[in-house]
Amino acid sequence: MSQSLLLISSSKAGDTPYLSHALSWMKSLILPGSRWLFIPYAGVSISYDDYHRKVADALESLDVELDSAHHLSDPASALDQYDGVLVGGGNTFHLLHELYHHNLVAALRERVGNGMKYIGWSAGSNVAGHSIRTTNDMPIIQPPSFDALGLVPFQINPHYLDYQPPGHHGETREQRLLEFTCVDPLMPVVGIQEGTALKRQGDALVLMGDKTGYLFQGSTQKQSLEPGADLSRLL
Amino acid sequence: MSQSLLLISSSKAGDTPYLSHALSWMKSLILPGSRWLFIPYAGVSISYDDYHRKVADALESLDVELDSAHHLSDPASALDQYDGVLVGGGNTFHLLHELYHHNLVAALRERVGNGMKYIGWSAGSNVAGHSIRTTNDMPIIQPPSFDALGLVPFQINPHYLDYQPPGHHGETREQRLLEFTCVDPLMPVVGIQEGTALKRQGDALVLMGDKTGYLFQGSTQKQSLEPGADLSRLL
Repeated sequence: MSQSLLLISSSKAGDTPYLSHALSWMKSLILPGSRWLFIPYAGVSISYDDYHRKVADALESLDVELDSAHHLSDPASALDQYDGVLVGGGNTFHLLHELYHHNLVAALRERVGNGMKYIGWSAGSNVAGHSIRTTNDMPIIQPPSFDALGLVPFQINPHYLDYQPPGHHGETREQRLLEFTCVDPLMPVVGIQEGTALKRQGDALVLMGDKTGYLFQGSTQKQSLEPGADLSRLL
Repeated sequence: MSQSLLLISSSKAGDTPYLSHALSWMKSLILPGSRWLFIPYAGVSISYDDYHRKVADALESLDVELDSAHHLSDPASALDQYDGVLVGGGNTFHLLHELYHHNLVAALRERVGNGMKYIGWSAGSNVAGHSIRTTNDMPIIQPPSFDALGLVPFQINPHYLDYQPPGHHGETREQRLLEFTCVDPLMPVVGIQEGTALKRQGDALVLMGDKTGYLFQGSTQKQSLEPGADLSRLL
C-alpha cells in the first residue's frame, strides 16, 4: 500500500490561526469520521492534555476522532486502531527521545510504510526525514540516536528562513545547512518555508504552498524549488 | 592547582576585527612566549589549516607559540607540552564529536582541572560547560554523548540574544532555554551576549564585558546578571 504523508513546515503561517493554513491539505488525507492518533511528545512547556485539546480544536471542522498517545499505555501496539497519526511540533530532540522511549520509531516506520497516513508539522516533519541532523531546535535532551523515521529518504529543514539580526554573529540558516552538506555531502536537505509543506503520495512528492523551497546537497547550495514543484526524484 | 578559564561568547563583537574585543582578556592568561594548543575541530566549512592561520594572525600581538591539534597524531598525549588550549568556535556537535574521537574529553578534564589554562569562544565555550544541551548549533553530526568537558558545573548559552524576525514562528532563545529548564530544572544555564565572557580563576567566576548576562534555572527565568557580576556561587 502506498505511503501518504503531509509534512508541514510550521503550525502557523503569518498571522493566520493555528494550523488553519494547512486544513485544506489535511482534508485530503483526513476523511470524515476517521480515527487519528495525535503524538504530543514535542510539547515541552505545554501539557500534553492542553496540546491535545489545542489540536483537536483546530481540526474541529474536519470531523476527526482524535486520541492522544499520552492517554495510551502502549501506543505502539495500538497503531492498528488508527487511520493515521498527527505528529505535532515543539522540540525535535524531545519528540525523538520519546518516540524511541515508547518504541514508536520502528512501529511507525512499519505502519506508515504499510499505508497508515502521517501528518506532521515542524518537529513532526523533521522526524519524518532521514535523521534530525537538520533541525533548528535546541538539543535539550539526548535521544538514543539522531536517526529518525526515514519516511522520506532525505533531510527536512522546516521553518526555512534566511535572516540574521543586524550585527549578530551566529550562523545563518544557509551557513548551517552548508556545514551539514560538508559533513554528509550525499544526503539531500529540503528547506521548506513557513506556510508550505511536502506531500507524498506513493512515489510522488510535491511542494505545497506558494513559497519557494530550497535544496542543499553536496556542492548544490540553495537550489530553488518552485511552488508546486514535482520532487518525486528525491524519493 | 586552580583552574584558569576564559569562556568568550563569540569571536566577534559588533564590527570589531576577529577576536580583537577579547585580546585584553586573553592577555591575562596568555603569557609572552608561552606555548598554546589550538583546537580547530569546530571548523566545518573552513580548513583546519586556514582556521589555525586565522587565529594565529589574530593573536599575533600576544607573542604566543600556537600549534594546532590537527598537526598532532595524538593531541591528548601531547597536552603536557602546552601552557594552555584555545578552543575555537564553529559547530558544537562537530567539535564535541572530534574531542571524543581524539580522546580529548577525559584528557582535557584532567589537565585543565590540574591548572592547564583554557580559552574558548562560541562552540569552544559551549563544550566547557556541563553538556552541549544549550548550544544554538545545528546537530549536523552525532557525538557519542552530549556530556561535555564540565569545566564549570552549569550550562552555557553563547551568542545570547532575544530576537525573533517579524512574523516568524520558530522559538525565541528565551523559549528554548525555558524548555531546557522544564526538562532539567536543577541545572543552571548562563546566557552570555556577544562581546562578553565568563572568567574563572579557581573558585572565582566573573562576567566580563559590558553587557548583561542571563540566568535560567527551574522557575528562575532570565534573571539579569550585571556586567562584572561575581558569579562564584555557580561553581
